[in-house]
Amino acid sequence: MASDDEIRDGEIRIGLPAGFDTGLYFIGTIRTPWRNRADCPKNPREAGDAVSTIEVDPRYAAALSGIEAYAHIVVLYFMDRARRDLVVQVPRHSGAATGTFALRSPARPNPIAVSVAELVSIEGTVLRVRGLDCLDGTPLIDLKPYRPAVDSPDR
Amino acid sequence: MASDDEIRDGEIRIGLPAGFDTGLYFIGTIRTPWRNRADCPKNPREAGDAVSTIEVDPRYAAALSGIEAYAHIVVLYFMDRARRDLVVQVPRHSGAATGTFALRSPARPNPIAVSVAELVSIEGTVLRVRGLDCLDGTPLIDLKPYRPAVDSPDR
Repeated sequence: MASDDEIRDGEIRIGLPAGFDTGLYFIGTIRTPWRNRADCPKNPREAGDAVSTIEVDPRYAAALSGIEAYAHIVVLYFMDRARRDLVVQVPRHSGAATGTFALRSPARPNPIAVSVAELVSIEGTVLRVRGLDCLDGTPLIDLKPYRPAVDSPDR
Repeated sequence: MASDDEIRDGEIRIGLPAGFDTGLYFIGTIRTPWRNRADCPKNPREAGDAVSTIEVDPRYAAALSGIEAYAHIVVLYFMDRARRDLVVQVPRHSGAATGTFALRSPARPNPIAVSVAELVSIEGTVLRVRGLDCLDGTPLIDLKPYRPAVDSPDR
């Protein structure tokens, strides 16, 4: 993944549309141990047992009712520091020019991450989870129950 | 899930923030056999073997390079007909008042669906996939490779 400004040899950027087609509300904030990109694990498995905190905006408190029944939740968050104009990227680990939609890099036209996290506890509008690998302060955009029967293709 | 206007007994709506925090680009369109909500399968498993088509905006053509290597892809799309102000909903199948974040209902503050689809074929910027259950004409917002090791919590 390129940093905010850097473009590597072989990477391709495009002009983005003049305006957005719809908008997102940030519904909370994710607190993790990682304050800058260099410290972030490369994927959720590398995050190991680290516990992160999801602070949901109290406006949406009632929407959490029932989520405590789930062992795992799907967390959608917005990678607000990622650039959005790269269609081909050269990941450091492979060195191979690859299309953005064939990568999980944060840099993409709509930098939304989808991560399955273990729900450790919930108190009020604060959830403690395991398995997130994002930067501290990352904006939350959705929470959903994880359902193995439909979220895993071969079950 | 409520229709665009209907609110059921026990459902709770809130006032949404005055403005959006960020924006999304629609990067393509999903073509399915389902032209209205009543016809849609309730979840991807019910969609069975139906093949849908993902038409990616040619602006992003280069971003598809390498995606053909994956058997399954994660498809993010925007459920543009869903209301965004319900925090408690009463699903028809259960009749139980439940928080929005404990449901997979389209109605949510940011109506983004996450669906794992089988990649059947790709030609130019058109992908044929199995496993989507959305309305015909649904806006696409992202494609990612599906990685069982990180997308399924117990592998």
